[in-house]
Amino acid sequence: MSNETETHLDISGIFNPESIAVVGATPKEGKIGNTLLKNISSFRRGKAKDKDKARVRIYAVNPKYAEIFDVKCYPSVSRIEEAVELAVVAVPAVSVPEVLEQCGEKGIKNVVVISAGFKEAGREGAVLESELIRISNEYGLNLVGPNCLGILNTHVGLNATFGKTIPARGNVAFLSQSGAFALAVIDWAKEANVGFSKVVSLGNKAVLDECDFIEFLAEDDETEVITMYLEDVRDGRRFMDVVRRITKTKPVVVMKSGRTEAGAKAASSHTGSIAGSSEAFSTAFQQAGVVEVNSINDLFDFSLTLSRIRGIKGGIAIVTNSGGPGVMAADAIEESGLVLAAFNRETIEKLRDLRVANFYNPVDIMGDADSDKFGTALGIVAADENVGAIIAILSPTAPIEFDKAGDYVLDLTEKKPIIPVFMGGETVMQPVERFKKRGITNYFDPVRAVKALYAVAKYSASREKVYAPPPYFKVDRNAIEKLMELIEREEPKLGIGADGFKVLETYGIPVPSYGKAETAEEALEIADRIGYPVSMKIVSPDIVHKTDVGCVKLNVEREGVKEAFFEILHRAEKYTSAGRIDGILVQQMVAGGKEVIVGMKRDTHFGPLIMFGLGGIYVEVFKDVSFRIAPLSKEDAMEMIKSVKAYRLLRGVRGEQMSDIESLVNVLLRFSQLCMDFPEILEADLNPVKVFEQGKGCCAIDLKMVLRTR
Amino acid sequence: MSNETETHLDISGIFNPESIAVVGATPKEGKIGNTLLKNISSFRRGKAKDKDKARVRIYAVNPKYAEIFDVKCYPSVSRIEEAVELAVVAVPAVSVPEVLEQCGEKGIKNVVVISAGFKEAGREGAVLESELIRISNEYGLNLVGPNCLGILNTHVGLNATFGKTIPARGNVAFLSQSGAFALAVIDWAKEANVGFSKVVSLGNKAVLDECDFIEFLAEDDETEVITMYLEDVRDGRRFMDVVRRITKTKPVVVMKSGRTEAGAKAASSHTGSIAGSSEAFSTAFQQAGVVEVNSINDLFDFSLTLSRIRGIKGGIAIVTNSGGPGVMAADAIEESGLVLAAFNRETIEKLRDLRVANFYNPVDIMGDADSDKFGTALGIVAADENVGAIIAILSPTAPIEFDKAGDYVLDLTEKKPIIPVFMGGETVMQPVERFKKRGITNYFDPVRAVKALYAVAKYSASREKVYAPPPYFKVDRNAIEKLMELIEREEPKLGIGADGFKVLETYGIPVPSYGKAETAEEALEIADRIGYPVSMKIVSPDIVHKTDVGCVKLNVEREGVKEAFFEILHRAEKYTSAGRIDGILVQQMVAGGKEVIVGMKRDTHFGPLIMFGLGGIYVEVFKDVSFRIAPLSKEDAMEMIKSVKAYRLLRGVRGEQMSDIESLVNVLLRFSQLCMDFPEILEADLNPVKVFEQGKGCCAIDLKMVLRTR
Repeated sequence: MSNETETHLDISGIFNPESIAVVGATPKEGKIGNTLLKNISSFRRGKAKDKDKARVRIYAVNPKYAEIFDVKCYPSVSRIEEAVELAVVAVPAVSVPEVLEQCGEKGIKNVVVISAGFKEAGREGAVLESELIRISNEYGLNLVGPNCLGILNTHVGLNATFGKTIPARGNVAFLSQSGAFALAVIDWAKEANVGFSKVVSLGNKAVLDECDFIEFLAEDDETEVITMYLEDVRDGRRFMDVVRRITKTKPVVVMKSGRTEAGAKAASSHTGSIAGSSEAFSTAFQQAGVVEVNSINDLFDFSLTLSRIRGIKGGIAIVTNSGGPGVMAADAIEESGLVLAAFNRETIEKLRDLRVANFYNPVDIMGDADSDKFGTALGIVAADENVGAIIAILSPTAPIEFDKAGDYVLDLTEKKPIIPVFMGGETVMQPVERFKKRGITNYFDPVRAVKALYAVAKYSASREKVYAPPPYFKVDRNAIEKLMELIEREEPKLGIGADGFKVLETYGIPVPSYGKAETAEEALEIADRIGYPVSMKIVSPDIVHKTDVGCVKLNVEREGVKEAFFEILHRAEKYTSAGRIDGILVQQMVAGGKEVIVGMKRDTHFGPLIMFGLGGIYVEVFKDVSFRIAPLSKEDAMEMIKSVKAYRLLRGVRGEQMSDIESLVNVLLRFSQLCMDFPEILEADLNPVKVFEQGKGCCAIDLKMVLRTR
Repeated sequence: MSNETETHLDISGIFNPESIAVVGATPKEGKIGNTLLKNISSFRRGKAKDKDKARVRIYAVNPKYAEIFDVKCYPSVSRIEEAVELAVVAVPAVSVPEVLEQCGEKGIKNVVVISAGFKEAGREGAVLESELIRISNEYGLNLVGPNCLGILNTHVGLNATFGKTIPARGNVAFLSQSGAFALAVIDWAKEANVGFSKVVSLGNKAVLDECDFIEFLAEDDETEVITMYLEDVRDGRRFMDVVRRITKTKPVVVMKSGRTEAGAKAASSHTGSIAGSSEAFSTAFQQAGVVEVNSINDLFDFSLTLSRIRGIKGGIAIVTNSGGPGVMAADAIEESGLVLAAFNRETIEKLRDLRVANFYNPVDIMGDADSDKFGTALGIVAADENVGAIIAILSPTAPIEFDKAGDYVLDLTEKKPIIPVFMGGETVMQPVERFKKRGITNYFDPVRAVKALYAVAKYSASREKVYAPPPYFKVDRNAIEKLMELIEREEPKLGIGADGFKVLETYGIPVPSYGKAETAEEALEIADRIGYPVSMKIVSPDIVHKTDVGCVKLNVEREGVKEAFFEILHRAEKYTSAGRIDGILVQQMVAGGKEVIVGMKRDTHFGPLIMFGLGGIYVEVFKDVSFRIAPLSKEDAMEMIKSVKAYRLLRGVRGEQMSDIESLVNVLLRFSQLCMDFPEILEADLNPVKVFEQGKGCCAIDLKMVLRTR
């Protein structure tokens, strides 16, 4: 919704309408308006048995006809006598605004616009689309699309799409930003007997976007998992707020495409080259508790598994009649970071009595085992409180009767989550079909079963995280705002040097002692006050790579200050004869400490994306960095620091003292607030920040900023 | 074969026998000997139409019967009048040796032993299995198994397994070390309509192992790809030699299980903790050109794709009627490291004329495109010489007729490799079935299509690599052998210090100047000769962590030598009053240079596994190391150095000189030869090796060794 309120929209009428108008219905075979009316009117017929639902009224709208099939046809929605809850619109794009006006006037609150020819079709379409938004806002319409496939609600048999099939009922809702992809998934799901609760083709998201549907589906009893294919999000901050809340109770699984394109956009600052928009999305997803996937296989493997298993309390057990696939599963478990269950003594004794090849985990009941032995082993393992989930692997050996083996899985599945890996084709068909009816996915590949369980573990770990709200530091905003103005006016591309240090000081981020000198004498005075040695560098908006042109001098002692002053000035003038030179920054040389980088790049969708890493090769070569979207909580900052591999260096290696992590957390939090407070800062780097031993704090040595230009 | 010759065995009689005896055949339903005879005799019947093949003779062997079904039954193989080419044995384990003797005497060269109860069943079984090996060697038998499912040759319809089904004909051979897994794959393949040329259940590999079959299949015209599930290899060095040769002409795809178990075995040296046996397998696979996979999905996705596409000359093009899945494919291509094709001008102009949404890559023909537009776009793209392969993605939109779209793919597939991604269920069934008949796999998930293409690119890159043979350096073996004896006799666990340096010197690996002193005066003499400062450390087999107990002094100047001598001696005596002290090593302090580690751990399967990495955190935290199995070629050594991420540091950062890579290559090659020459060295670490600027060489500062104890 363009209207950014926190109160939920009531969009239930889209999925459960008592009356539907099909605008653009036609008796002409092959037309979208024809398929739509057929699909929607079969909804009514399908429900005729159910007295309440039988009241659902369907209207066709098309000035050319009086009746289509057995549905009464009206020249316009305005002419329908009764109230209408949902209009599905498939008329040419240019006619849609008029239809919307009529819907609004008639009090139809829910409209699905199938028609294409809007934003996706160029400038004229975009103008037309803004018309739709205006009218929707005027009448408070819940508009789906335009340029979409429509919506499906399997639980009432409503197919308001122009696709030919409706998938089986299930408890996974599927939102797709690509209509064609939704079409493919529906077709595949029918064949694969995969069920959905609701399917929404989001289209251009002119009015209703992913967040509106996520909020609705969060309250929907028929939906256990919200699965999405996204190409972007309309409002990144709202997405994070909504999803972070909802993933505490319902899993949200997202496949986001366009991950690599964004990375190609060149970014101007050092940090920027690492933090592309792709990192922003992944970071936002992670912070909001989204399970992100990169393939269609994973999208549905994970969703279907999460729809019945929300968490795993204990290790993973493997029960198998064939060693090889058992080892494959064990390999995959160890590699993914899941834990193989350690059985308790009772389990081990019972398994020993059962005479299995291995009564530790994985349990190998051997190739000559029959279904009863499988069932007994499964029962023993399911009873062990150390076991959180079971992967039950069966090869089609002669003694195994698969329908019987399937019974055991179905009987025990209430006791412990069981993922069946019945390996075969026709031989395993019967139980596999029965599993599907109970919402259980069978895998041929044990590695896929493990991956799905890993997704469950990841979801449940993120759900259990509790964060305190981000802290707020009192800052003299007035002083800062003046400074920001100054920086912005004078140096639109790069804020650095003394003015930058003042910003940091105001925000409580420690900086070296410094001063700006305009004469050699001034430089000496400042240096005397700071103490020796000092570093000296040019202050000029026109010289970016100061070191490269010889405009930085390090470790300058008292006797060298004046010489350094003139040398720097000379080189600067040589380099940029017409450029502006504001003086020379004399700065304390900070000895010791470990170098880290704290950076920010403002993402168009999510706002400030904060980066942390250890300086030099760790960032440049190993890309050993962590990201979070601001504002940071204390836990966020701590996680950022701990999740880089080079954290070991801060903890101290070979008897070194630990670095002052607490002080570094403080810098991250204050830097985060600075980025939140000033949307004018597009990019910022504290590079390096020197971190000293525990209790001795840190110090930001240099600040670079890219500011928004007017 | 136990007989380790390079001449190939003739095992064609296993797959294409003119006469077969089924030993242990029985009319009792449900018994293995019953299923076997049924399966094998259906082979004869199946071939009756073909006059030559109709001559295939089948014999049953079981003293209890005169005939089983319509097959004549003999009390023993000895009693069969005619010659027999293949015996398939399913009698109790204890009777197998006797059957083998009879086969040998009768001149039956090929025997498949299905029976279980050998090595896998414990000590007694292992004794029985060594009997089988002895008899096989005596008579020169080609023995498959024991404890296996049998073998399949689809191209002549031979099913010599006790599985019920025979898969479709195909051009992928499948070897499985797990019979149960083979059973599952055959069952699945039948259902999925995936074809195989030959299937071999390797069983215990008592006589014939993976290498024998790989050599045979390399020459087999019906096999284009050799696919394997392995739990180990019988002879690692032979495996590497055989497979390295064969992958130059035929792809070998391997799933190896037990990757993580091995890693758990604690290793004693520093290097060892990184190089587990899992690394040895992966390294051997990589060096031999094997395509290694970690899941069953990948095993068959990659094999089936490689069976028709051996290489990609050019970039990847995407043609799609739906933007979303097109972007998914593009993401996967960029993430995998494959390259999207850049079209030439002609292609772009033709696509522009065709009015597609994007005439660069990916080509989006849009949702309203019909099959002809799809076909035209596909043809334009296939004609572009910059395009190496095409991913053709279609969603089931109304205008697409899939059978027609399938025609276009089939027509153009001779021109350019095309991977179809026809997304849907029943709607796409017809073309998908036709693709299968032509050996083309359709994918629902574009990401899986990309992964398969990536495997092709990886295979073809490894096939094109040309290596010179490893160099051989002349070494005074006599001097070294004396030294090795010395080290081995006196310090079985750890060879270090002066003796170690002598070994390195003999092998041409530069070391610092050094000398062993037994008196303080001697220490001073040596130090004077070397030049100051020096380092001094204890020489004692009983002190491992010398630094920790204060027995190492660095940067000692002339005035401190005597004091350091006595201090070290005092601390050593305090630490190990009863231990042996051999003197004090006085060593040149080597200033500057970058620290690298060169290590070796002898793998039980493959021999010396050489490790390279940059010292300290790069090895310990980032695990930024590379591995190769010795002997190294010059190209191997160069690749090892270049493939670590921290190589950037050796190349030189921020204006530094490049390090002396050539000299480092030399160290790796000589270290490799040392490890090859002395199998007594179980582990060895040069840690650190200091590498100086280009032209200034390197220097091994310390050597640790673990030697085989008697």
